[in-house]
Amino acid sequence: MSVTYGSLTPEIVEQLIHIVSRKNVIMTSERMEHYSHDETNAEEYAHMPDIVVTPERTQQIADVMKIASRYTIPVTPRGAGSGLSGGAIPVYGGIVISLEKMNRILEIDEKNLTVSAEAGIITNELNERLKSRNLFFAGYPMSLETCVLGGNIAENAGGGKAVKYGVTGRYVMELEVVTPAGDIVHLGGKVSKDVSGYDLKNLYIGSEGTLGIVSSATIRLLGLPQSTSDLLVPFRTPQEAISVVPLIMKMGIIPTSIEFMDASSVQMSCSNLNESLPIEGVGAMLLIELDGSREAQVEQDLITVGELCETHGAMEVYIAEDAHTRERIWSVRRNIAEAIKVYSPIQSLEDIVVPIASIPDVLPELERLSQRYDVSIPCYGHAGDGNLHATIVKNPASSMEHWHEIEPQILSELYRFIVGELKGKISGEHGIGLKRKAFLKETSSSEEYALFKAIKQALDPHGIMNPGKILI
Amino acid sequence: MSVTYGSLTPEIVEQLIHIVSRKNVIMTSERMEHYSHDETNAEEYAHMPDIVVTPERTQQIADVMKIASRYTIPVTPRGAGSGLSGGAIPVYGGIVISLEKMNRILEIDEKNLTVSAEAGIITNELNERLKSRNLFFAGYPMSLETCVLGGNIAENAGGGKAVKYGVTGRYVMELEVVTPAGDIVHLGGKVSKDVSGYDLKNLYIGSEGTLGIVSSATIRLLGLPQSTSDLLVPFRTPQEAISVVPLIMKMGIIPTSIEFMDASSVQMSCSNLNESLPIEGVGAMLLIELDGSREAQVEQDLITVGELCETHGAMEVYIAEDAHTRERIWSVRRNIAEAIKVYSPIQSLEDIVVPIASIPDVLPELERLSQRYDVSIPCYGHAGDGNLHATIVKNPASSMEHWHEIEPQILSELYRFIVGELKGKISGEHGIGLKRKAFLKETSSSEEYALFKAIKQALDPHGIMNPGKILI
Repeated sequence: MSVTYGSLTPEIVEQLIHIVSRKNVIMTSERMEHYSHDETNAEEYAHMPDIVVTPERTQQIADVMKIASRYTIPVTPRGAGSGLSGGAIPVYGGIVISLEKMNRILEIDEKNLTVSAEAGIITNELNERLKSRNLFFAGYPMSLETCVLGGNIAENAGGGKAVKYGVTGRYVMELEVVTPAGDIVHLGGKVSKDVSGYDLKNLYIGSEGTLGIVSSATIRLLGLPQSTSDLLVPFRTPQEAISVVPLIMKMGIIPTSIEFMDASSVQMSCSNLNESLPIEGVGAMLLIELDGSREAQVEQDLITVGELCETHGAMEVYIAEDAHTRERIWSVRRNIAEAIKVYSPIQSLEDIVVPIASIPDVLPELERLSQRYDVSIPCYGHAGDGNLHATIVKNPASSMEHWHEIEPQILSELYRFIVGELKGKISGEHGIGLKRKAFLKETSSSEEYALFKAIKQALDPHGIMNPGKILI
Repeated sequence: MSVTYGSLTPEIVEQLIHIVSRKNVIMTSERMEHYSHDETNAEEYAHMPDIVVTPERTQQIADVMKIASRYTIPVTPRGAGSGLSGGAIPVYGGIVISLEKMNRILEIDEKNLTVSAEAGIITNELNERLKSRNLFFAGYPMSLETCVLGGNIAENAGGGKAVKYGVTGRYVMELEVVTPAGDIVHLGGKVSKDVSGYDLKNLYIGSEGTLGIVSSATIRLLGLPQSTSDLLVPFRTPQEAISVVPLIMKMGIIPTSIEFMDASSVQMSCSNLNESLPIEGVGAMLLIELDGSREAQVEQDLITVGELCETHGAMEVYIAEDAHTRERIWSVRRNIAEAIKVYSPIQSLEDIVVPIASIPDVLPELERLSQRYDVSIPCYGHAGDGNLHATIVKNPASSMEHWHEIEPQILSELYRFIVGELKGKISGEHGIGLKRKAFLKETSSSEEYALFKAIKQALDPHGIMNPGKILI
């Protein structure tokens, strides 16, 4: 879409200040720098906004959108800025609408088992607040202590418990959305089935802020499981570890999580945390969590899964039942991305997803790419979902020019293999954003891509809503 | 949308015959009558098509759509014709594309636990074919012996097991869709999470054939539960029965089904089937099913649920554990709609859905409407989903003129109460179709309705795809 954007004149700035009040406007370069990037590892993606506003109410978002719409100013919505595909980067400048001050819980409805909250609430805080009522939101992004609900919805976040509980979208009952024209729309409701008109709610979920801004949401809650246990299972080779995953998925027990971590991922994370796990001779580990309402049943399932691992090459099966030990292990898992970043800041964190039966086919291709391009590719992720965070890391011995040359080649080869050979997808939970938009076009059929564009054109006809993301 | 449609000239008929071959074209009034209506109870909805084609391959559907698109001929897709909102009625004439000959299973993928089938396959046949592999598709529409997969997807069917298993859309992994322009698009894939572009798959699910034609689908399968049991629980009054539903939903056990049947629904169905259930002094019954992988656990849950019912006014708790008895009871439940139709052909079968906590508030309003308008309103349905099939039945003593006058008034009052007071929706699983389109507009915000229209305009710009449905 080719759009000529308007400039942010002093008059428009004045109008924005009038809407959100002066304390909710940021205009200095120093303070705006924070809003010029997200957690995507590539400085070349960064771009400064012209202005940042931090509205406190939905109506203020709507009024800002009306101004943006009138003057064709690009608008980039932002949650915690913890995204991994450049979705919150204002690539065309303009206005960043940060939801950071919209972080209230609006309602806990115990009768209908829902919570309604503003989009800027930290995901973990929701569950902290719900714990005493024995309820929880089953979304569990790995960055749960920093990411916010609106971002989870924008990316349809998956995370660590999706094998059993599914992704964020499964729990979203109602959305309040501000459209590019500045209308406030409520989609969905506290109902368990609904065919009253087109399913706009699911269209907005995962649309990365390119069709409108989610200002608040109503989330379905579940009763807290009474019993949770983890297995940590080391294998001699990554291939042995990953090959057990489809076998577990077929045995009729649905674990909460099946996480895969290769040895280098575990080592970097442990070292970064000053933690130790038993890794001598280990090629990779599975971290398997089970939960349920009955302790005896969870234990029985734990034993069954453990035995399956043992008969398929596990070196050992460690059981972590107490909360402290479980938290130690999960900290190692959650810290991997950060640790790899510390050790190798020049990298590309990937988010490929494949059918369950094809999970074992991914690692040989990563190995081939690693050798062909002389890069290392540590790999970890949500193996039970077929969703692996392979991380392509620049060889310290090679030049940046060389890296810039080979990075898109590696991604292109990887994505073509994942989509073409394994019938997978290029992103399971991190999104397309800025980073993968060229590859989305490359790996989509022209017919499907035309539908994507038709949707964008229909709902954001002036192209002001998070431009430069998802589509080229 | 105002569209001037082209006429079906002999030349176009010739082209259609060329595409699908003569044996797959129906043009006589006698044979076309079958395609002029669905199961919606109102003769005034019926409308004859100009021609019916029964393609055998997706490419034929695409080629027919290209012709329709070139000459602006309206096209109405049709599955089994078992719909309850007029979705398959060709209100503007033109071409009916019946999927009846596209009923093949394309693949059973045991490694990924999926089945792929053409849209015209009878839903029940899928499960019959999967039984020996210990797998099943968890969709369970009440018309499962006649309805087809494509129709289930078009309406996002719910049915009898949605309390535990959710609706059809939860199991759809991939769709093959023919667009109004005649392009064949594949949406989704055998992956458990996916944020690679907009969620078009869920947009097509429940869109009632107004955005394109689903030609085949890949469905996620589950392992067959090893143990299933039912409770039949009579109460003295409908209000007592329905008030127990939110209590069951909050106790942490998730039943497969919680069906509600008031006394008149049960009586009519039993009489129609020549069946007998213990109904003396009964005002309503709950039919509660539990299933699971462990028999002991299902039995324990069964006892817990039964005890809850007993402490909240149940007259008795009958347990049906053997398949024969369970099938007898479920036959009564499945036959209710047909039985009411036999006794009272002039009626309006409704499909309202409300938040769980508001379920008990529905019956007093039905009682009020019944008295105010002097009609009877037997009520039954998927109480555990908050989805009730209240059926407004004409008083035999009043005139048809009077019925035509009051029916829209009753529906308008009912829908305004459901949407305005209870924050529910006008259709949970039957769809908007022809029957509810005026009420969808009446009960939607103007902003939401504008988005519905924008989606339709974007994906069907010439308005040829199942016109006259969902939107006015």
